Amino acid sequence: MQERLNTDTKIEEVVHRIAAQVKKNSKYISLANEDIKNSLLERIAKNIEKHKEKILSANEIDINTSKNEPTITKAFLDRLTLNEKRLTDIIKGVVEIISLKDPVGEVVSEWQTKDGLKIKKMRVPIGVIGIIYEARPNVTIDAAALCLKSGNAVILRGGKEAKNTNTVLVDILKRSLIETNLPPEIIEFLSPDLGYEAVHIMTNLNQYIDLIIPRGSEEMIRKIQEISTIPILAHGKGNCHIYVDKDANINLAVKVCFNAKVQRPGVCNAMETLLVHKECAGVFLPQIGEKYRNSSVEIRGCEITQKILPYAKPATEDDWYREYLDLIIAIKVVSSLEEAIEHINKYGSGHTEAIITENKENAEKFLKEVDSSCVLWNASTRLHDGGVFGLGAEIGISTQKLHARGTMGLRELTTTKYVVYGSGQIRE
Amino acid sequence: MQERLNTDTKIEEVVHRIAAQVKKNSKYISLANEDIKNSLLERIAKNIEKHKEKILSANEIDINTSKNEPTITKAFLDRLTLNEKRLTDIIKGVVEIISLKDPVGEVVSEWQTKDGLKIKKMRVPIGVIGIIYEARPNVTIDAAALCLKSGNAVILRGGKEAKNTNTVLVDILKRSLIETNLPPEIIEFLSPDLGYEAVHIMTNLNQYIDLIIPRGSEEMIRKIQEISTIPILAHGKGNCHIYVDKDANINLAVKVCFNAKVQRPGVCNAMETLLVHKECAGVFLPQIGEKYRNSSVEIRGCEITQKILPYAKPATEDDWYREYLDLIIAIKVVSSLEEAIEHINKYGSGHTEAIITENKENAEKFLKEVDSSCVLWNASTRLHDGGVFGLGAEIGISTQKLHARGTMGLRELTTTKYVVYGSGQIRE
Repeated sequence: MQERLNTDTKIEEVVHRIAAQVKKNSKYISLANEDIKNSLLERIAKNIEKHKEKILSANEIDINTSKNEPTITKAFLDRLTLNEKRLTDIIKGVVEIISLKDPVGEVVSEWQTKDGLKIKKMRVPIGVIGIIYEARPNVTIDAAALCLKSGNAVILRGGKEAKNTNTVLVDILKRSLIETNLPPEIIEFLSPDLGYEAVHIMTNLNQYIDLIIPRGSEEMIRKIQEISTIPILAHGKGNCHIYVDKDANINLAVKVCFNAKVQRPGVCNAMETLLVHKECAGVFLPQIGEKYRNSSVEIRGCEITQKILPYAKPATEDDWYREYLDLIIAIKVVSSLEEAIEHINKYGSGHTEAIITENKENAEKFLKEVDSSCVLWNASTRLHDGGVFGLGAEIGISTQKLHARGTMGLRELTTTKYVVYGSGQIRE
Repeated sequence: MQERLNTDTKIEEVVHRIAAQVKKNSKYISLANEDIKNSLLERIAKNIEKHKEKILSANEIDINTSKNEPTITKAFLDRLTLNEKRLTDIIKGVVEIISLKDPVGEVVSEWQTKDGLKIKKMRVPIGVIGIIYEARPNVTIDAAALCLKSGNAVILRGGKEAKNTNTVLVDILKRSLIETNLPPEIIEFLSPDLGYEAVHIMTNLNQYIDLIIPRGSEEMIRKIQEISTIPILAHGKGNCHIYVDKDANINLAVKVCFNAKVQRPGVCNAMETLLVHKECAGVFLPQIGEKYRNSSVEIRGCEITQKILPYAKPATEDDWYREYLDLIIAIKVVSSLEEAIEHINKYGSGHTEAIITENKENAEKFLKEVDSSCVLWNASTRLHDGGVFGLGAEIGISTQKLHARGTMGLRELTTTKYVVYGSGQIRE
């Protein structure tokens, strides 16, 4: 971004020009076959490897700049930081995407009508995708690689703290496009120097951009949802529940509930609220409570929970809504399966919920009546993940009901098109 | 609506209460099996038949009220009018929906992971759907029947001119729910007496409503898109094209191009712009021009078209963007297939486009590179329709790229859910 920006009109012009350019060039990636797209991803992986030093130096500048800011937290600095190990992970991620099947061209369904029309519903790229994110520079490569493999052009808008790192990474992406004989304008970077005004303009350019993917905090995503007129695919809040039924295998329940809370508490599919049937609470809660205590998990319980676990703090109404993303758990003893389902549908975020039971009828009722993107029987909520499901890298987990629900991968970055083969048919 | 409304707060309370009520009761239709839903639709069909006189008297009141309004057009009155024939068509529509397969419970895909998780991606209802429409009272039954068959609860908001008719129709819907042992609150009607403010409130109740379907004019739909924070499924503008290639079978081209413009010009999948390759323009245009002239079609052509058809008026830049919905056609002579594709992707609305050619390679290029919800080879654009495609009644044709693209039927009124069967699996 060499231009001097004087006015908002100027910013508007720049954002328009960039978006129009990407839209115009999107057909070259949209029509590229799988071999070309894989060659492109191979070049990207090789160029990251080749320019490791350059990336890490740029990242060091970003870290040093941020370090001196009083408002920057340790966690923020950690998200901003790249190192040898993280670059290797980014490269691995790209290589993994190469191995995934290209969804473009997939025939979703195919049939022939009575008057001889042959109809195919086929997967095609969405077009131009805008990615808006915060400090993490790995998103630049992860998100771009998923979009490119599914035939989409990309406008990236990363946070200002990662500006130097992202500039180098976008340079690598553009260089890789050129080396694959594709126009570098398939990917553009919206400089954070343009300010938040540019995000506002970008998210209203429906004529150029088909989809906005915001990646970051819940608050950031909510803000984008409010200002954007372009459809959004967002990673959803995960207030995930496990219900331990009266017919649960207690050992299995302890194993799964410990895993769902403790294995990685900071992610969306970690359990936040544990619901326990009153008939097994007396046996189950002391066992899981002990394990949680040994792992420094703070317990916030209902009155009955507090009676069984004297070390539990009282839970307030607010706790049932919370996504702690931390070593904290809310526990409630319920009188019935119905009460558990009602609690989840009232307080939950529609992300991921599990039932632990040996009773098939209860399990089926739970799986049917809980209104969430993923429901599991006798398994940890932590398993709701594109990689674990065998679908490959994911762009996030959606709690929306339209277009994509649950883990989102390459397929969710495509749309469909009816292709109809006729022989002169008309409407009578 | 018996309540007296004093303030906007009062309106807000009423809309909130209605929406919360539908949301609360939505689980009863969501969990109803296909037999129950079909019984419900049978009751609706029978009750319309039984109360024909009552519906027609209410409709007469609406018509007489509107007749005296100076701003009401003849076309508007026609859309508002019900008669014996139209009621029979409405009943037929409901009976047709009974015969369609229930999409709920359909397993979209199913697989097992390496660690033994059995995963099913299943179709489930969306939840609560808000339908906002104008004068046509048949939408009350058509839209409700499609939503109910796919397991969704409905909030209807029809235009004020059809108030009396809609009140009787909603009464029939509620009576039919009761007769099927379902709560009548699965369907609610938002009285037009609440004013447009109620539409504004309704389209921002994301906690109760999962989807808004606006049905009406382009302007009305645009307005709803602007104010709604709830996702929208909208019927799209149809600026449809046919490209007659240099390798076209001229007789077939004449037949299809006549059908696509003249058979029913007022609908979205009628052709609006005809593109003709220069090498066949001299032979083709006089033939189709003569047929159009005999059917009173006004031709607006480019310079070359005007030379070949002296009776053609000049087309302006604006004409290439227009959806006439009338006996008017824009015609342009192009130098190549590439120019045709570029023209369509620039001026089109992404609805439905066809190529007429005997050249397979050209056809494949057109089908691949034109970015529309439906592309046809040697067939009329008028065929892009749920009924013709064999998919059953449609709720409209979408030009969006997310969730639903092209003709939308029962399946597009559902979402999916991952259902996972485990045996104690955890995340390592």
